[in-house]
Amino acid sequence: MTSASTSNVISSERVEGTNVYNQSGDKLGSIDDLMIDKMSGQVRYAVLEFGGFLGMGTDRYPLPWNVLKYDTTLDGYVVPLDKAKLEGAPRYAQSDAPAYTPEYDKDLSSYYGVDW
Amino acid sequence: MTSASTSNVISSERVEGTNVYNQSGDKLGSIDDLMIDKMSGQVRYAVLEFGGFLGMGTDRYPLPWNVLKYDTTLDGYVVPLDKAKLEGAPRYAQSDAPAYTPEYDKDLSSYYGVDW
Repeated sequence: MTSASTSNVISSERVEGTNVYNQSGDKLGSIDDLMIDKMSGQVRYAVLEFGGFLGMGTDRYPLPWNVLKYDTTLDGYVVPLDKAKLEGAPRYAQSDAPAYTPEYDKDLSSYYGVDW
Repeated sequence: MTSASTSNVISSERVEGTNVYNQSGDKLGSIDDLMIDKMSGQVRYAVLEFGGFLGMGTDRYPLPWNVLKYDTTLDGYVVPLDKAKLEGAPRYAQSDAPAYTPEYDKDLSSYYGVDW
């Protein structure tokens, strides 16, 4: 899959599992999944997997795709969000994924200030 | 992941592995991977995995996302392409994925008559 780096596209299998860092270079977690608009094919959210302390399972943070910036040095994505913003961000438990209804979509857009 | 069907988005993990049929309802293969535009987050191709006769490995057909129509009865995607069109379509061996360069992109767009 190294060939993908020389092109304008990247494979979903490559994105899944990629590390995510904050602006200080601390690892936040990794991408677990992508949420794609069924009609347009637009990736709306990259779902950050985070935590998993003491075998309690991990939390999922849906991050708007355009929040993620790829950093070639880190070989991962950087999210320009401070700790407080991320700590207050919408999340769900691995075992309790929401339906991603239009309402949930709206909550996320609002939190991150994304205008679809 | 059943909850995803009630929303406007679908998870990449759900798309991967979904069966693909022709218009007669014959199974062509399944989705192996998605190729996503790095900058815009637009899914450009869903890669159809097909074949695998006699342990020879499978071929991959990158299909433009908007060619795929989801059919709830089949619980899979339908591609409105005739046999000849698919047989002549750009493909590659599992072990020999191309770089998805702008030139390759252009070849695919041209073959399927997609204007990005």
